[in-house]
Amino acid sequence: MTKPFKRLLLTGAAGGLGKILRDRIKPWADVVRLSDIGDMGEAREGEEIVQCDLADKAAVFKLLEGVDAVLHFGGISTENTFENIMAANIAGTYNLYEAAHKHGVKRVVFASSNHTIGYYKTTDYIDADSPMRPDSLYGVSKCFGESLSRYYYDRTGIETVCLRIGSSFPEPVNPRMMVTWFSYDDLVESLRCALFTPRVGHTILFGASANPGSWWDNSKASHLGFKPKDSSTRFAASFPDTGAYPPKDDVATIYQGGGFLMSGPQYKD
Amino acid sequence: MTKPFKRLLLTGAAGGLGKILRDRIKPWADVVRLSDIGDMGEAREGEEIVQCDLADKAAVFKLLEGVDAVLHFGGISTENTFENIMAANIAGTYNLYEAAHKHGVKRVVFASSNHTIGYYKTTDYIDADSPMRPDSLYGVSKCFGESLSRYYYDRTGIETVCLRIGSSFPEPVNPRMMVTWFSYDDLVESLRCALFTPRVGHTILFGASANPGSWWDNSKASHLGFKPKDSSTRFAASFPDTGAYPPKDDVATIYQGGGFLMSGPQYKD
Amino acid sequence: MTKPFKRLLLTGAAGGLGKILRDRIKPWADVVRLSDIGDMGEAREGEEIVQCDLADKAAVFKLLEGVDAVLHFGGISTENTFENIMAANIAGTYNLYEAAHKHGVKRVVFASSNHTIGYYKTTDYIDADSPMRPDSLYGVSKCFGESLSRYYYDRTGIETVCLRIGSSFPEPVNPRMMVTWFSYDDLVESLRCALFTPRVGHTILFGASANPGSWWDNSKASHLGFKPKDSSTRFAASFPDTGAYPPKDDVATIYQGGGFLMSGPQYKD
Amino acid sequence: MTKPFKRLLLTGAAGGLGKILRDRIKPWADVVRLSDIGDMGEAREGEEIVQCDLADKAAVFKLLEGVDAVLHFGGISTENTFENIMAANIAGTYNLYEAAHKHGVKRVVFASSNHTIGYYKTTDYIDADSPMRPDSLYGVSKCFGESLSRYYYDRTGIETVCLRIGSSFPEPVNPRMMVTWFSYDDLVESLRCALFTPRVGHTILFGASANPGSWWDNSKASHLGFKPKDSSTRFAASFPDTGAYPPKDDVATIYQGGGFLMSGPQYKD
Amino acid sequence: MTKPFKRLLLTGAAGGLGKILRDRIKPWADVVRLSDIGDMGEAREGEEIVQCDLADKAAVFKLLEGVDAVLHFGGISTENTFENIMAANIAGTYNLYEAAHKHGVKRVVFASSNHTIGYYKTTDYIDADSPMRPDSLYGVSKCFGESLSRYYYDRTGIETVCLRIGSSFPEPVNPRMMVTWFSYDDLVESLRCALFTPRVGHTILFGASANPGSWWDNSKASHLGFKPKDSSTRFAASFPDTGAYPPKDDVATIYQGGGFLMSGPQYKD
Amino acid sequence: MTKPFKRLLLTGAAGGLGKILRDRIKPWADVVRLSDIGDMGEAREGEEIVQCDLADKAAVFKLLEGVDAVLHFGGISTENTFENIMAANIAGTYNLYEAAHKHGVKRVVFASSNHTIGYYKTTDYIDADSPMRPDSLYGVSKCFGESLSRYYYDRTGIETVCLRIGSSFPEPVNPRMMVTWFSYDDLVESLRCALFTPRVGHTILFGASANPGSWWDNSKASHLGFKPKDSSTRFAASFPDTGAYPPKDDVATIYQGGGFLMSGPQYKD
Repeated sequence: MTKPFKRLLLTGAAGGLGKILRDRIKPWADVVRLSDIGDMGEAREGEEIVQCDLADKAAVFKLLEGVDAVLHFGGISTENTFENIMAANIAGTYNLYEAAHKHGVKRVVFASSNHTIGYYKTTDYIDADSPMRPDSLYGVSKCFGESLSRYYYDRTGIETVCLRIGSSFPEPVNPRMMVTWFSYDDLVESLRCALFTPRVGHTILFGASANPGSWWDNSKASHLGFKPKDSSTRFAASFPDTGAYPPKDDVATIYQGGGFLMSGPQYKD
Repeated sequence: MTKPFKRLLLTGAAGGLGKILRDRIKPWADVVRLSDIGDMGEAREGEEIVQCDLADKAAVFKLLEGVDAVLHFGGISTENTFENIMAANIAGTYNLYEAAHKHGVKRVVFASSNHTIGYYKTTDYIDADSPMRPDSLYGVSKCFGESLSRYYYDRTGIETVCLRIGSSFPEPVNPRMMVTWFSYDDLVESLRCALFTPRVGHTILFGASANPGSWWDNSKASHLGFKPKDSSTRFAASFPDTGAYPPKDDVATIYQGGGFLMSGPQYKD
Repeated sequence: MTKPFKRLLLTGAAGGLGKILRDRIKPWADVVRLSDIGDMGEAREGEEIVQCDLADKAAVFKLLEGVDAVLHFGGISTENTFENIMAANIAGTYNLYEAAHKHGVKRVVFASSNHTIGYYKTTDYIDADSPMRPDSLYGVSKCFGESLSRYYYDRTGIETVCLRIGSSFPEPVNPRMMVTWFSYDDLVESLRCALFTPRVGHTILFGASANPGSWWDNSKASHLGFKPKDSSTRFAASFPDTGAYPPKDDVATIYQGGGFLMSGPQYKD
Repeated sequence: MTKPFKRLLLTGAAGGLGKILRDRIKPWADVVRLSDIGDMGEAREGEEIVQCDLADKAAVFKLLEGVDAVLHFGGISTENTFENIMAANIAGTYNLYEAAHKHGVKRVVFASSNHTIGYYKTTDYIDADSPMRPDSLYGVSKCFGESLSRYYYDRTGIETVCLRIGSSFPEPVNPRMMVTWFSYDDLVESLRCALFTPRVGHTILFGASANPGSWWDNSKASHLGFKPKDSSTRFAASFPDTGAYPPKDDVATIYQGGGFLMSGPQYKD
Repeated sequence: MTKPFKRLLLTGAAGGLGKILRDRIKPWADVVRLSDIGDMGEAREGEEIVQCDLADKAAVFKLLEGVDAVLHFGGISTENTFENIMAANIAGTYNLYEAAHKHGVKRVVFASSNHTIGYYKTTDYIDADSPMRPDSLYGVSKCFGESLSRYYYDRTGIETVCLRIGSSFPEPVNPRMMVTWFSYDDLVESLRCALFTPRVGHTILFGASANPGSWWDNSKASHLGFKPKDSSTRFAASFPDTGAYPPKDDVATIYQGGGFLMSGPQYKD
Repeated sequence: MTKPFKRLLLTGAAGGLGKILRDRIKPWADVVRLSDIGDMGEAREGEEIVQCDLADKAAVFKLLEGVDAVLHFGGISTENTFENIMAANIAGTYNLYEAAHKHGVKRVVFASSNHTIGYYKTTDYIDADSPMRPDSLYGVSKCFGESLSRYYYDRTGIETVCLRIGSSFPEPVNPRMMVTWFSYDDLVESLRCALFTPRVGHTILFGASANPGSWWDNSKASHLGFKPKDSSTRFAASFPDTGAYPPKDDVATIYQGGGFLMSGPQYKD
């Protein structure tokens, strides 16, 4: 049986989620091209390994050659200095899109983040059209990626799904993750929907499992047909009900961004 | 046990869906009156057969006599000349409502169509209040039927459910129908809800099974209590994932109306 | 100085508003082609007279030949039998659009009516996206014209401004018209905006002067740049304040459609 | 194992729902303090009994002493004279919040009612931000409680969940309750969510099981993570489909408030 | 010339605004009935003086006898104890509406307040459907009046305009009033619109002059036709531009309620 | 008379608008500090000149010292290479905000652009909450500035007005500018409002004069009290009405971004 793609590019392949995805996405392409600034080990069957700094425009141009579609998980994934974030996430994402456009790539899945909207309150319910409210410089760089991909779609027709990943870990490790948890299986299924829906235009999808208490309404991405199958409820026993309410000014529970809010200044609007 | 209605009228009884419904609606009425311009065979037990051209006002007046409620599936159901559509769908629907009003009929289910909104994009998510955007003269005639039934409700109190049928076939036969498929069981259940909810006023209901990737939000018809039980997911294997994206200007995948867009001029807004 | 158009078609030229417009629109075209089913007198300089039944498809095809743009004021403009309305307003408007499409006409102004939304209450404030609620068969035919012109825009690119005319008379003659009055000067200015804005797509514009108490929000037609200059306030003395409130069930003051609601059945939703 | 609260106050403990809750809420607190104006019997293990008139400010002040959180089910729960409602529901609720504030209580669940919005139609679908439309003086007093608790949250930070209870009975006893039924299990689960979600701010939650035909959209309370497990569908056989439509002016089926509309004046807007 | 009303009742006639209105409303009624708990001096020509405690149900019943319409400005108009507010504003407003209903009065203008929504931020722009957020017990009592009048409209058909008065003084006396100022002329004009628009249903109108920086959108009251003629701009010189920004936690400039927020607890959400 | 600020910083002082503003803003500060990468001539009375590359973090840190408020007009203001835009507009704006935060500056006016939303159609009417749709890399960099300033507000409390400047020139020089023109007087008045409104939080303001045909709704910035006094109507004679409609696929008239759309790829969504 033929696979859907000849060559699928995964950036950030040495990162936390990249490692998870490396095997899971094999059924989708004859060749999976893996890219990272870090070490990715040896290429296995059906893999191509390209070590590459996303900030290196020429290297990224070559990286995109012959690629059918991209899963862009590369760059920095937590708070960092602006200089580092600008190189990896801002210049890097520009380089990727410009190369994709030059090579005629038609579809990108961009690993965005819930930290694009981390300054909404945990009592808010928002959707893809709610104005962005980043909670960190990292979050600002993901807002940039969403704006840039919107531009590339409107200007060139490259379709992008911006996946605002919640907390993709084996299981929730704190109460906030009971809301934001995104199981690996659901992550992979969301990527499948993002890659194989015939038309996606420019879509923003919140990446979370079917957890109770969710803050995010995915109805504007309904056409992707993504339905999470996991739920954090099965970990409920790990976080028993408690009447020990957080202090009134505890930003980590007031805002959706959680722990990202706890370092640095903490103005409370 | 008594049945809910004495006499229920089904127009379009010789049509594709009419044939399906003929038996399924029997539990709802002592007598099912069947009407069509075409041949309907012999009347079976509990049936009345009335061959009738909907464009014939006097005939339609007689057709509605003694009727408790109407399932209006008659008329032309694909693109055609405007002259034919005007006779069957415009004059025909007017004749039906005027006769229903004169005879004091209280409830109509009007078989409308997703082609009333076929010019929305396949990346849009719409609801009953989204302005109509018909994709064909056929679709325009269904918009007319919705406007007319709204008028009859506001003016006379006849309640109507406009059922915007997706693709009601035994199973999906192309990728678009994976989104728009409306199983016969779900069709029948939607009619049951439309007929037996105590009050419906003038309600627009999208008729589709619980398919992934749906473009249609039925929350404004929540009071009908219609919950589809089928889903196109069980046919997923017939339409495997493919990375062969449609061309950027392929109207049949850009717009919800699908194949209806493929004949005649194809302006792309 | 050259005029903007070579040939501008005005249908309904023998009607109430047609007569008013006949002279006012002359500055816009070298030739104004006038059409009506009734007598229009002799052609004056810069005019062409074409007596024509809009229900006659072939005649309408010829009528549109050589035309740059259309002001479609023809058809029936008050409540009438459905048969008459169907011929003049439904078949007639179809004939006009199909001929316009065949001849490559790029712009139409369609004289729609506030009776497309006459079943909103006089305490409602609505805009172009509020679902239609016609108050008469006449109103239903105008809903049809709006749906049809939407279809022709989406399918062929013919741009239309649907002008939902309020009450275009020399002055308000009853309290309702203090809200709905549309001075002739403002009518002409709205047509100018509708014809000469470079792009209008498919726009719905409520046609009323800057009257206090207006029910209609034109912000979705903002791009037309139409700003009424007249206001009914200068007629306020004709309708002095009164504490004689209308009865609670007086449909003519409950609903925006006013007097159109007063004949026939009067269900109150 | 420690329980979440040291002391949880339940007002209205001798009322219909109070009796149900008395045992069910025991797992949540070392001590459940029960309060009512009526007789509550003897205190059982883990209970404190405080007979108390909510209209008695001093008594209520004492009642709140040492309390961690409150389930405020006290007061009058059906239509009554305004004098009685004002004492029990208006003064009573003020006394409760002022005492809660003085004692530093952080969380209240306020038993509000669907009668705060009973004048919406049964064909409407509303959410927590839909303007209130009470159907009775009782309903008006619940609107007051919602406004007051909003004030106490904004001013002092006391968090409240206003639970707009539908029909909490062992099972539906009329067709309306097929829509509004709130099983005891679901009621208890909603209270659990309201008490133990870390932050709730001021949240309005409609209290109903997962019944078909629901009029209420709880998405603005999504953060509570409340998912009803029961549904009225299992009682469907008790209310078979009928074509005996209610009269057009039957307020009890026109408006969501149902039977509350049937006594006294019945203006139909 | 006859005046619009036979008898118009003004409650609160001895209050700040009552004194202003006493003379200004004379043109609207043959007899103006003035009511207050305080001294109103002697009755002048065309006046009736009725000293009356609004909390006295029997007295209020008599007060409404023979009245055509009511301007309800009575009660307490600043923060006070809950006991006083409950008597004057809660019981008082109930007594007024119940008496109005019993006597068949058709129209009430209820002097509500911007303090029903004082907890919105000064950077928010709200309208009549924005959920209420009172900033004081006084504000809560005005919310009650709005809910109660909604109930009386839906139940009995008494029409009410709730006028959420900003700051009605001779001129702005602080920077906040540059936004909230409501000139006496504009106040009177708003009352004229509220009394003489044929149908108002239940309308909420923000009472402010055409001041720059307004927080309030009156489009949902458009049918009243109220257009303020004054603006605070002419007092701009009294409040020169300053770069002395208020502290970040200064509740009086954060929230629309202004100085009402400055006494008591000051939680900042 | 004292001026509102001690020291006001204007970046981009050698640019087109910078030169205009240099004199006009003098009344607002004892000292105006002027900054640019280019030559600004000699400092005049009340001026400080600081030549500075915004990409130079240390220089920008010094630039902000002692500053009360900032008008940030620096950076690149038309399409350019991404490298140049990243240095001037992305790194530059980060440097400015970080320095402002470190020095405790409380207010910034950020010169954003209509090119943040240039891919909306000229028939769309949008407001500050409409998702961004940049039409150029320049536009993407302005989206970045808006996201970054949102982050700095939420995190540190620095207030920003993002002024999405239309076309600020002496007069409109093409038909598009009849819609987007922003007179210098109106520009200055908008800056005055942005600087001196006591609280602005994070506000997005469209910068245009009161031109007919506007695409932009400023109601969400109502609190700024900005009312343009100029209008493009006085230049109407320069752009006479024409029936020469643009081609259907002419992106420069389809999209709000106008000429920015005319170079490079021109996908039409």
